[in-house]
Amino acid sequence: MVEIRKPIQVSEAINRVLQHSRAMPTITVSLDESYNSILAEPIIAQHDVPPFNRSPYDGFAIRSIDSIGASGNNRKQFNVIDHIGAGQLTSRKLGEKEAVRIMTGAPIPESADAIVMLEQTVEHDGGFTIRKPFAKGENVSRQGEDAQQGEQLIEAGTIVHPGIVALLATFGYAKVDVAKKPFVGILSTGTELIDVDEPLQPGKIRNSNGPMIIAQLKRMGIASKSYGMRMDDLDVCCQIVEKALEECDVLITTGGVSVGDFDYLPAIYDRLKAKVLFNKVAMRPGSVTTVATVRGKLLFGLSGNPSACFSGFELFVRPALLTMMGCKKPFLPYAKAILTEDFPKPNPFMRFVRSIYRFEDGKAYITPAGFNKSNAVTSIARGNAFMVLPGGTRGYKKGTEVDVLLLGVEEGVDKWQLQ
Amino acid sequence: MVEIRKPIQVSEAINRVLQHSRAMPTITVSLDESYNSILAEPIIAQHDVPPFNRSPYDGFAIRSIDSIGASGNNRKQFNVIDHIGAGQLTSRKLGEKEAVRIMTGAPIPESADAIVMLEQTVEHDGGFTIRKPFAKGENVSRQGEDAQQGEQLIEAGTIVHPGIVALLATFGYAKVDVAKKPFVGILSTGTELIDVDEPLQPGKIRNSNGPMIIAQLKRMGIASKSYGMRMDDLDVCCQIVEKALEECDVLITTGGVSVGDFDYLPAIYDRLKAKVLFNKVAMRPGSVTTVATVRGKLLFGLSGNPSACFSGFELFVRPALLTMMGCKKPFLPYAKAILTEDFPKPNPFMRFVRSIYRFEDGKAYITPAGFNKSNAVTSIARGNAFMVLPGGTRGYKKGTEVDVLLLGVEEGVDKWQLQ
Repeated sequence: MVEIRKPIQVSEAINRVLQHSRAMPTITVSLDESYNSILAEPIIAQHDVPPFNRSPYDGFAIRSIDSIGASGNNRKQFNVIDHIGAGQLTSRKLGEKEAVRIMTGAPIPESADAIVMLEQTVEHDGGFTIRKPFAKGENVSRQGEDAQQGEQLIEAGTIVHPGIVALLATFGYAKVDVAKKPFVGILSTGTELIDVDEPLQPGKIRNSNGPMIIAQLKRMGIASKSYGMRMDDLDVCCQIVEKALEECDVLITTGGVSVGDFDYLPAIYDRLKAKVLFNKVAMRPGSVTTVATVRGKLLFGLSGNPSACFSGFELFVRPALLTMMGCKKPFLPYAKAILTEDFPKPNPFMRFVRSIYRFEDGKAYITPAGFNKSNAVTSIARGNAFMVLPGGTRGYKKGTEVDVLLLGVEEGVDKWQLQ
Repeated sequence: MVEIRKPIQVSEAINRVLQHSRAMPTITVSLDESYNSILAEPIIAQHDVPPFNRSPYDGFAIRSIDSIGASGNNRKQFNVIDHIGAGQLTSRKLGEKEAVRIMTGAPIPESADAIVMLEQTVEHDGGFTIRKPFAKGENVSRQGEDAQQGEQLIEAGTIVHPGIVALLATFGYAKVDVAKKPFVGILSTGTELIDVDEPLQPGKIRNSNGPMIIAQLKRMGIASKSYGMRMDDLDVCCQIVEKALEECDVLITTGGVSVGDFDYLPAIYDRLKAKVLFNKVAMRPGSVTTVATVRGKLLFGLSGNPSACFSGFELFVRPALLTMMGCKKPFLPYAKAILTEDFPKPNPFMRFVRSIYRFEDGKAYITPAGFNKSNAVTSIARGNAFMVLPGGTRGYKKGTEVDVLLLGVEEGVDKWQLQ
């Protein structure tokens, strides 16, 4: 008897996974270590930015009142009484027609209220003249114009990219509270698998899913441990899975989730008393993708087929890991693009076609990345996006606008925008 | 006298930098270490994929000839003579109306030429019946249908992302030839700078550019060394720069490139007999960005202003480093998007506005990420793109379609598409 599984929609599958994505604890790391983490605290302006009225140019700080009436025919004369660079303060107070020579980034003396750029002056020994009046505040980077003390600038749950690092450094966050990264176990199952450094044997293929998932995790800055790739005996397997569940926050298996005679995962789930969230998703490739929880930990049973395994990771594992870290934008960015060739296959289920997304002449185009069966591996290596075709549709014609999910993008989006 | 510098166009500046980006040597790394490197060799199919005719389903391998005439009223009967899982071979040769029970991924016996899915059968003790004929090759994953031995699948110069890792693993690339990553030195200059863990002092700001650049390099998987951030004495500075040039492949300095009284970089370039490729670019922010070479090594003199520094890195340093590694797609991905608000500033030079790019209701939108002066730091932390406004334009109205460069995207493009 073949087990009949009821497929659920992709959106519903994602919902179930995210509902079971348990929050990771907060840890404190140095700013250096924070890159690619998820902020566990908002970034609050610890002081005004700029912290003082600042000169944005090399020039002279003046009292604007002294420039009134200046013109080409009536140049106004200033005497320079001090000279400061960035990081320096003047002790002098400007009197009438006095100026301080000031460099970019230096604090403007309290007694001054405008900056004359070097280029706007004619200099002479001990002073300069100008040919136009300056308004109060002209060429002044005002204290607090970029950010005001106490303002929340970035919310918790944001990924730490280089711009965030700059902001953290500005406010003296030498230590940052971020979500601890989940530690992920990987178990590749399949009696046909041999290791990458083994010579090919009849009937065998090399394990590509394991290294691929390690790289998918590395892309997220997440460390993993491989639990090998044998699966000969149910007892041994259960022991390995038990051990992995003790050591890891999340376990990913590949292969063995179908209804074949050597597909052990369903039996393992039974033994572990796992709660199976779903074992059939209305998607291609990867319809047998199974997700379960054991003692609150997520077990991802990805298909052994490379394309299906890749898709299962990007669609389910990635948003789950990001959600565990409190990320507010766990989903792949969504776009639309014009299909560049006919795609004649019918789509009984929602289909994720590994594709090449590109922008040309002001328009976005999408081209399937070659051979697209679930066991294809070459198409995973090409392309940078999924073309997504809704279930229940027939073929698609060249020129049709279709849905796209972008891969390898640092910052995701906050909503799953497809069915 | 203020030095008058002649600005060059951004595209010309990029050209000059790339012309001076010297190729890094090739190194051999393990597959594990290859992620985020640039391939120094193409990926050639070392064998057919699949390497044998493979069953894509759980089912039975049959001779299609035995299924001729099968129908609901005339079910054809098969006897099962063997049972193989993935990775297993049968020693049996099929005779008339014989079948081998076969699982997904297993090699199809030479004597069979079609696969009947389990769901297409009614099983009984020792055999099964089918109700439809099967064509020769039906449900067979043909040897070589995904890739043929000797075929070049991926060109040298491609970034190693997870899909590439999968392909390398498939073909047994336990070791991979990749470009050695440049080692980058960072020297932050500016007498106003204090370190991230120091309390704020009057007239000072914390060094945010250094940590930001380290993170921008980390995003590319590139290691760096910080050479501190003091700049009091020209002799000392020259010594530090000399040392950095000995130890590093590329040196990035921040600050000190303008024409101010404390801007030492021009003097350092002189002393080092550096060849200055340009010291003024028709862009905002970052017009003072300077690039020079010393003994064949690139010296990037980025502006000390955070936004300008960030832009200078993304526009010049990033493509240079990628080109040094032989990457064929060193440029930021380009797109178009609709401006969501008025941008009234005139643009004497090409303007790069740190912005938020998003897709909604089938359209791409771009929104400036807040305060946009060159010394702004908060806008760097927000957003995921540059809006690019051509030089010589006045303000832009809400609803206008504008150019966009996307940040934080794994795979770039092969052409600089702007002026």
